[in-house]
Amino acid sequence: MSTDSRPAATARSRLRPLGPSRVTILDGFLAERQRVNRERTIPHGFDQLGRSGTLDNLRLAAGGDGRYRARADTSGATLPFLDSDVYKWLEAVGWELGRAPDPGLAAAADQAIGLVAAAQRPDGYLNSYVQVVGGVPHGDLAWGHEFYCVGHLIQAAVAWHRALADDRLLAIAVRAADRIDKEFGPTGRDGVDGHPGIEMALVELTRVTGDRRFLGLAARMLDLRGGGLLGEGRFGAAYWQDHEPVREAATVAGHAVRQLYLDCGAVDVAVELDDHALLAAVRRRWQDLMSTRTYLTGGMGSRHRDESFGDPFELPPDRAYAETCAAIASVMLAWRLLLATGEAGYADAIERAVYNGVLSGVSATGTRFFYVNPLQRRTRRAWEPPGHGERAPWYPCACCPPNLMRLLSSFEQYLATSDDTGIQLHQYATAEIHAEVAGGTGRLSVHTGYPWDGRVTVSVVQTPDRPWTLSLRAPSWCRSAAVTGPGGTEPLATGTGAAELSRRWKAGDTVVLELDMPVRVVEPDPRVDAVRGCVAVERGPLVYCVESADLPPETELEDLCWDPGREPATVPRPDIGDAVVGISVPVVRRRPAGSGTPAAGVAGAIPYFAWANRGAGAMRVWMPC
Amino acid sequence: MSTDSRPAATARSRLRPLGPSRVTILDGFLAERQRVNRERTIPHGFDQLGRSGTLDNLRLAAGGDGRYRARADTSGATLPFLDSDVYKWLEAVGWELGRAPDPGLAAAADQAIGLVAAAQRPDGYLNSYVQVVGGVPHGDLAWGHEFYCVGHLIQAAVAWHRALADDRLLAIAVRAADRIDKEFGPTGRDGVDGHPGIEMALVELTRVTGDRRFLGLAARMLDLRGGGLLGEGRFGAAYWQDHEPVREAATVAGHAVRQLYLDCGAVDVAVELDDHALLAAVRRRWQDLMSTRTYLTGGMGSRHRDESFGDPFELPPDRAYAETCAAIASVMLAWRLLLATGEAGYADAIERAVYNGVLSGVSATGTRFFYVNPLQRRTRRAWEPPGHGERAPWYPCACCPPNLMRLLSSFEQYLATSDDTGIQLHQYATAEIHAEVAGGTGRLSVHTGYPWDGRVTVSVVQTPDRPWTLSLRAPSWCRSAAVTGPGGTEPLATGTGAAELSRRWKAGDTVVLELDMPVRVVEPDPRVDAVRGCVAVERGPLVYCVESADLPPETELEDLCWDPGREPATVPRPDIGDAVVGISVPVVRRRPAGSGTPAAGVAGAIPYFAWANRGAGAMRVWMPC
Repeated sequence: MSTDSRPAATARSRLRPLGPSRVTILDGFLAERQRVNRERTIPHGFDQLGRSGTLDNLRLAAGGDGRYRARADTSGATLPFLDSDVYKWLEAVGWELGRAPDPGLAAAADQAIGLVAAAQRPDGYLNSYVQVVGGVPHGDLAWGHEFYCVGHLIQAAVAWHRALADDRLLAIAVRAADRIDKEFGPTGRDGVDGHPGIEMALVELTRVTGDRRFLGLAARMLDLRGGGLLGEGRFGAAYWQDHEPVREAATVAGHAVRQLYLDCGAVDVAVELDDHALLAAVRRRWQDLMSTRTYLTGGMGSRHRDESFGDPFELPPDRAYAETCAAIASVMLAWRLLLATGEAGYADAIERAVYNGVLSGVSATGTRFFYVNPLQRRTRRAWEPPGHGERAPWYPCACCPPNLMRLLSSFEQYLATSDDTGIQLHQYATAEIHAEVAGGTGRLSVHTGYPWDGRVTVSVVQTPDRPWTLSLRAPSWCRSAAVTGPGGTEPLATGTGAAELSRRWKAGDTVVLELDMPVRVVEPDPRVDAVRGCVAVERGPLVYCVESADLPPETELEDLCWDPGREPATVPRPDIGDAVVGISVPVVRRRPAGSGTPAAGVAGAIPYFAWANRGAGAMRVWMPC
Repeated sequence: MSTDSRPAATARSRLRPLGPSRVTILDGFLAERQRVNRERTIPHGFDQLGRSGTLDNLRLAAGGDGRYRARADTSGATLPFLDSDVYKWLEAVGWELGRAPDPGLAAAADQAIGLVAAAQRPDGYLNSYVQVVGGVPHGDLAWGHEFYCVGHLIQAAVAWHRALADDRLLAIAVRAADRIDKEFGPTGRDGVDGHPGIEMALVELTRVTGDRRFLGLAARMLDLRGGGLLGEGRFGAAYWQDHEPVREAATVAGHAVRQLYLDCGAVDVAVELDDHALLAAVRRRWQDLMSTRTYLTGGMGSRHRDESFGDPFELPPDRAYAETCAAIASVMLAWRLLLATGEAGYADAIERAVYNGVLSGVSATGTRFFYVNPLQRRTRRAWEPPGHGERAPWYPCACCPPNLMRLLSSFEQYLATSDDTGIQLHQYATAEIHAEVAGGTGRLSVHTGYPWDGRVTVSVVQTPDRPWTLSLRAPSWCRSAAVTGPGGTEPLATGTGAAELSRRWKAGDTVVLELDMPVRVVEPDPRVDAVRGCVAVERGPLVYCVESADLPPETELEDLCWDPGREPATVPRPDIGDAVVGISVPVVRRRPAGSGTPAAGVAGAIPYFAWANRGAGAMRVWMPC
């Protein structure tokens, strides 16, 4: 068994992940988000899993007395996939306990693992909804989410195995996967889940167990999808990507999270089976997705009705769905494509999503969440019940909060990779990193004020006495950069993806990357109808927004226009957070229909991820000119 | 009993409707639409009611054998309101048979009426879904649509009574209403339907029967709504307008058709009970709706997810819901407000909705329909199954087609009214109109090429020998008009609502109204974010659109911009229909990202109502500049 191949193993990949033990984020922006996640969000999650009945559902499945709580609304819709929230939370706790012990978290996790173990049937089947509410196991693959839940169970088991070498969950997960393989394996039923996700988990299960049956089952499920097994459902076959074979579909379609999870599994299978055609299909879809259906914030999914991608360039800011889970899933997919190909553009996509559309999903306090992440909210809105529009402490469908937890708990693993030639830094944070390079261990110490400051200092702490290559990503947003190494300073040709410094390093060598970070005023693609005539401001990896909380009383955000005659400027925003850089945006006030005189002024813009921490006011990323 | 007070009775109204027998549309655009509706659409509807099982459901309710067909989709959602489609179709047939006999239609209607009669329980209860599928009568007021269906039954009964003095349906409707009044009347249960609609029908039932119990029941239902009887449901209490009392809600909210039907009932109750506060509440909501949430086409409802009004100025052209039924409901509500107040702005709203967002709901052939009426459709779109995007011959939820049928069948009733001082012409068509004016009957003959031509000639055919006032609406779109009467020609002060000519008329007198009809290039309200930087073209009452069917091959509509340096011009479009005036729109071709040279040209625009009769191509009303 292997303990260092999370998030995805080497196989035919171009780059190798370093796993949880080789990177530690020490300080700065990401360290603070990880601290809040560990100290506030994850304990809050355990509390909410208890209050909502989600943990108790597993107790009922183990034979306990009580009423199943599936968050049925009055229309009769029920949610059969709540077990997955427990598994995602457990995955996060696994990564956290691997980083450092915490008796309270460990006790909570032991309790949850005990419930999961007790709930599993002797034959391996495990799904509290079917076991308690009723129904035939695997009787409703389209909506039942049984494979989906097992997929998350496997991911939790893999985390506990890799981070802690604790295989309690792995034993449960293997039994659950065996049960599925027995029924749906090569000689069994044809079946795919209405919600993809198990495919990537099965590949990981092969990676940690060495049992290639699971990889084969994942490949079989990918081959079967697109053949119409799921039917049209309520939203058409494209909703669950069953409209076209996975190898053939030219564009993303349907439910955004479903598509992205599916493509994660496709990349994992492709690299394990050296399946170039399958990888090419995913890359083609990704390219189309990036160029036609991705919000400036990295958000994805334009439609509320079916949580789906819309038409190309259908990117409304106000009705953006941009589910937090979709942004997270895009990070998971971009990471897999980065490993498979080594292309820096995938790391750019991770950066844009994480710093904007992912982190917008959780409050500064770490205990309130957004499921939907729009790029505009009006001052006057459709009628809402009191309190609506605020971040919520939990959701009836609570997929996003524990998904945030597990991503943040494992995020140091997305910072760097290695290959036979050296070490690649993809995301910048003050951190320690070590990896095997040719001839021994390379150990790096990174210091930076990123994302507020563009200076990144990398010190070599340990190195073998042989040449290797240090690769530093040049973010695609950066138009001017320089790198200073032991050999002197050189301007960095931006747009090339990365600065590569090859030499026989010595301990104490230092490389300084200077990324110019001016305020950027960006215009939308003219094909994005919904934000025509607007501009947005960005700085470094961050997208900014104007919030009504920063406007004078009585000023409606809708009355303000960008003033192209004046320049934006940075301003410190300690009120928003440590070291936060805000932007002062030049605006003129436009009273519609000509009443009143335009008044020039400025509006304070803050990073988009930090919006909605000061009440349910108005906000916009795209400002009309 | 009264036979001449459809669509709404006099009561405390400012104007009196003329009823079905006093106006006949003889020729021209509206006559052709009525002909197609009678000869094609209504027979098609009977065929579809048969094929879909909707008629058969009533046979099952009467005790027949078979399986109920409620169009369940695979998610388990069922539609309990299909009986209403039969009633709306019957209402249309009632108006048609009143205009002229048709043995085929009469036989079909007799068959349907027989099924309805047989299905009714001895106690008056009538709902095929509950009777066949099961459930307790009135056990699920929120979603069951039982009152809603009885409302449509009553409207059909009123039509047959007024148009034909045939009271077979009226007897059934009175028994059904009695049954509801017994359970939900003044001393009974508190209950309102999740879908308003019965309120206006109950008022009409009082008007034709003289029994004020039904009016009282309608008033009681209005008073109860907003008190939380329906709960939050799936979309929140505002979805069914149960969030605030009907008298207090300042703005429209929730499901568009529900809100508009509710306000129709509120106006009807207000005029019957002389309830100024209730009428004022509806007028306030209407004013807000017109100024903040109405599409250029008169369409209403911005969101697909819950078929709801959105925020103020949330009017996306691509994802406009703009349900055909909502446009029809807006006509019904504007008509009631016109009668109640006499204000010409309401007739303007009827005109805009009918010529654009209503008629877009039915194909030129009369046999294919749109449920949703967007103002933009892209060349490249989200994945759709083959054939999707075309107009459909019927819908699983088929509320819109028979709603179109009944509106078109009764549309001559919306042309004119009378009051103590004379006759008011609100909509222009070649027609004969007679009404009681002071001292006798006034009979008018109207000739016009409207909406293609702005000349309207009104000849007095018969008149009492006493002065009275002929009132001709000056449409709000018209910026220059003149009226020539027996006393000479006068420029018409536009913006005043109407030209009023008072005199002692003589048979043979002629009045000519000349409405200038240049092409108008209109800009959106700057608060409508979704169409910023665009213009649209209108002419007369018609909104125009550019369709890909009129572009050269290989030209994508998305690559074209309006050229502000050149002028649009009218062009005959016999290919679209008799006398149709098209508009030649100056455009430049813009290849995104600067590739290629802009090429100047023109694109042919056609009336919006006529779009999507040439395949599932691209279309846009708002052209970027």
